[in-house]
Amino acid sequence: MKVTIINIGDELLIGQVVNTNASTMSRMLTEAGMEVGKTVVVGDSRDAIWQAVDSAMHSSDAVLVTGGLGPTKDDITKKLLCEYFGSELVESEVALENVKRIFAVRGFELTPVNRAQALVPKCCEVLNNDLGTAPCMWFKKIENSKLKVENYPGTANELSILNSQFSILVSLPGVPFEMEWLMQNRVIPKLQETFRTETIINKNILVQGIGESFLSDLIEPWELSLPECIRLAYLPVAGMTKLRLTGRVQNTQSNRITLNNQISEAVEGLYKIAGQYIVGEDCETLAELVHKTLTEKGLTLATAESCTGGTIASQLTAQAGASAYFRGGVVAYSNEVKECALGVQHSTLEAHGAVSEETVREMAEGVRRHLGADLAIATTGIAGPDGGTKDKPVGTVWIAVADAKHTVAQLLSFPGRRRQQNIDRTVNQAFSMLIKLLCQKD
Amino acid sequence: MKVTIINIGDELLIGQVVNTNASTMSRMLTEAGMEVGKTVVVGDSRDAIWQAVDSAMHSSDAVLVTGGLGPTKDDITKKLLCEYFGSELVESEVALENVKRIFAVRGFELTPVNRAQALVPKCCEVLNNDLGTAPCMWFKKIENSKLKVENYPGTANELSILNSQFSILVSLPGVPFEMEWLMQNRVIPKLQETFRTETIINKNILVQGIGESFLSDLIEPWELSLPECIRLAYLPVAGMTKLRLTGRVQNTQSNRITLNNQISEAVEGLYKIAGQYIVGEDCETLAELVHKTLTEKGLTLATAESCTGGTIASQLTAQAGASAYFRGGVVAYSNEVKECALGVQHSTLEAHGAVSEETVREMAEGVRRHLGADLAIATTGIAGPDGGTKDKPVGTVWIAVADAKHTVAQLLSFPGRRRQQNIDRTVNQAFSMLIKLLCQKD
Repeated sequence: MKVTIINIGDELLIGQVVNTNASTMSRMLTEAGMEVGKTVVVGDSRDAIWQAVDSAMHSSDAVLVTGGLGPTKDDITKKLLCEYFGSELVESEVALENVKRIFAVRGFELTPVNRAQALVPKCCEVLNNDLGTAPCMWFKKIENSKLKVENYPGTANELSILNSQFSILVSLPGVPFEMEWLMQNRVIPKLQETFRTETIINKNILVQGIGESFLSDLIEPWELSLPECIRLAYLPVAGMTKLRLTGRVQNTQSNRITLNNQISEAVEGLYKIAGQYIVGEDCETLAELVHKTLTEKGLTLATAESCTGGTIASQLTAQAGASAYFRGGVVAYSNEVKECALGVQHSTLEAHGAVSEETVREMAEGVRRHLGADLAIATTGIAGPDGGTKDKPVGTVWIAVADAKHTVAQLLSFPGRRRQQNIDRTVNQAFSMLIKLLCQKD
Repeated sequence: MKVTIINIGDELLIGQVVNTNASTMSRMLTEAGMEVGKTVVVGDSRDAIWQAVDSAMHSSDAVLVTGGLGPTKDDITKKLLCEYFGSELVESEVALENVKRIFAVRGFELTPVNRAQALVPKCCEVLNNDLGTAPCMWFKKIENSKLKVENYPGTANELSILNSQFSILVSLPGVPFEMEWLMQNRVIPKLQETFRTETIINKNILVQGIGESFLSDLIEPWELSLPECIRLAYLPVAGMTKLRLTGRVQNTQSNRITLNNQISEAVEGLYKIAGQYIVGEDCETLAELVHKTLTEKGLTLATAESCTGGTIASQLTAQAGASAYFRGGVVAYSNEVKECALGVQHSTLEAHGAVSEETVREMAEGVRRHLGADLAIATTGIAGPDGGTKDKPVGTVWIAVADAKHTVAQLLSFPGRRRQQNIDRTVNQAFSMLIKLLCQKD
């Protein structure tokens, strides 16, 4: 079963907004066993939307469209879909009740613009949107010729053999939390009912301390020995590589058990040849791994951040339940704050500077003590693009992690001057050092 | 001139990675006066890539492809492009020199896998990638029939009339910082040389304190009076709406001057009817507006964050030059930290709780005093999804902003339980309150 995602919005094409909807929807569909073949972004232009919808309807089993449903002038999806499916706009009782309910909750008066949100093409089914006024619309189109065969020189002739004799189109609002709720509660269950799906199992392994090409050389024999139903992908992010194994089989229980076993064996094989670089499993990010590890161990953490400016704290506290282990942190951007809030000695700063092993150690030890935590992370460095000196060029970063007995400090020298990249790499390296410290404690 | 962007990678289709490349590239191209007609994501599958490339080459003047150039097994773009353009792989001297240079800098030995990165299709021009080993490749294809006319019922017959009698395809690495550097320094200048382009002027207005549909009603007469060459878009983000005016004209000096005047008049008109809701102009985010305002005014800031967990500090320090005004911050996640690092009184916490007006005021005043700043922001609340009580349900948030003379506190009650959304809205509201406080001071 093949899905195409179409996200509509000029703001996406001029790059003012990052299209997180595509990735959220792709992740949810993949986890539900459906395959996303393509995602497309088009602007708020009638022709571009029509063409994208028509092309997707001929080459996919289901087409999910977001955006263009708001009450404002630049939103045109609904009228276009109405015309595409040869229908007419009618006021939906279900949708109107929903609009009224939401306005009642918010205590606002219902304006004609808002009431117009209950207009939907007669031929669609309205999936109720509990979180907003824009309706979610489900269309079904019977296709006479879903098998599309085209000639492209040098590649397979059959481009797509589709499973079904019909195509589904679902139109969702582009507001991320409404879209996500509708996907979870309305769209995915209904798609699963409508199509029989494959099982897809993903397994993540987080690797650090080795470049992508060296890793590739190291694990090549292992990779070549993987069963055909398992694919490997390299996903390098900010100084860390996420290896992802994806297994895919027809959805039966025995298939699922076999695939799970094959994936376990593959992971075991990987540990044998690259175990020293593996930091963790089953997490998307190192922040998630730290979150899980500290929660399990019941240990508390404090942070003292200079060059990372609160990003470590922010990545940890973005996760629900962080209050169980995260005591708090100090963003010590100026030297005075390093002294007064972390207890770094004036003489240390004078003698060695803010970016030094001595300072980072005192920062980690100071924040751990001041905030009464079991563990601490500290960072100080020059993230760039400016601010470097001959001795300490941009990209010079010191990190320390500490527990009651040890403080481990490390110097990093990033080659680039890109601020966000240097911050992100420092954050990942700090998390990785903390995990290593925790493993040594066992 | 129409551009299509194709981003390749299974990781994008299963939603593990957010596709920031599409938005970065779109923004850069738009700023350079080029129009992105469509962005497409396909997986690491030969047929899907071929089809996307072929379709884009027939409907665009330039096609930019990212991904699939790494040295690892899952990367197939280069071979496919070689076949698509009917060429053969040869070792490029330029590319090999670059690979050698980068390995010399890093002090690594050159492996055969890395050397293979210098293989490129004979027919392409290599654009040197200063930051990485994957080459950037520029292809030019002469088209006999670039004018594509198709029939789609109910819409315009002519889908796309292209400017040129040839199409350009550029293949870039998917690593974000390499892609960005190549776009800036190699690809965009060469595209500008190759095509004559339109001028596009964008103007952002940040609006807060009014819902999208009410705003739409309020400004409808103004919107209808805009000249035809100016389009309006609503971009709601975390409790704020960004209004974007986009003007587009043929690139002559007199056109540019006229368009600039038309946009200025339009903005003036907007202030007349919705001035009280306008927070700022010419910024993408409120963090950027705060950064600019504090830098200009030469005032310093400290932050005390509970429920936002460092996100305010992190958004400010992500911007180069933040050290000019940002003294530092405390992430006061536990009550003990609120007391010991911010000087919130134990009796206040006992009597009113951590989420209260009294506490948030003491947090703001405490951090301002302790860190010696002119201004302070403090947040405390229940971001969710759990942790609420009957009196203080999830979504209850207190924010305070303070200067030497005033402390202003505000209670927010978000309806949803979504943690990240509640954090993001709190951050935006806090920035907006700080800007209001700064304007009052004038």
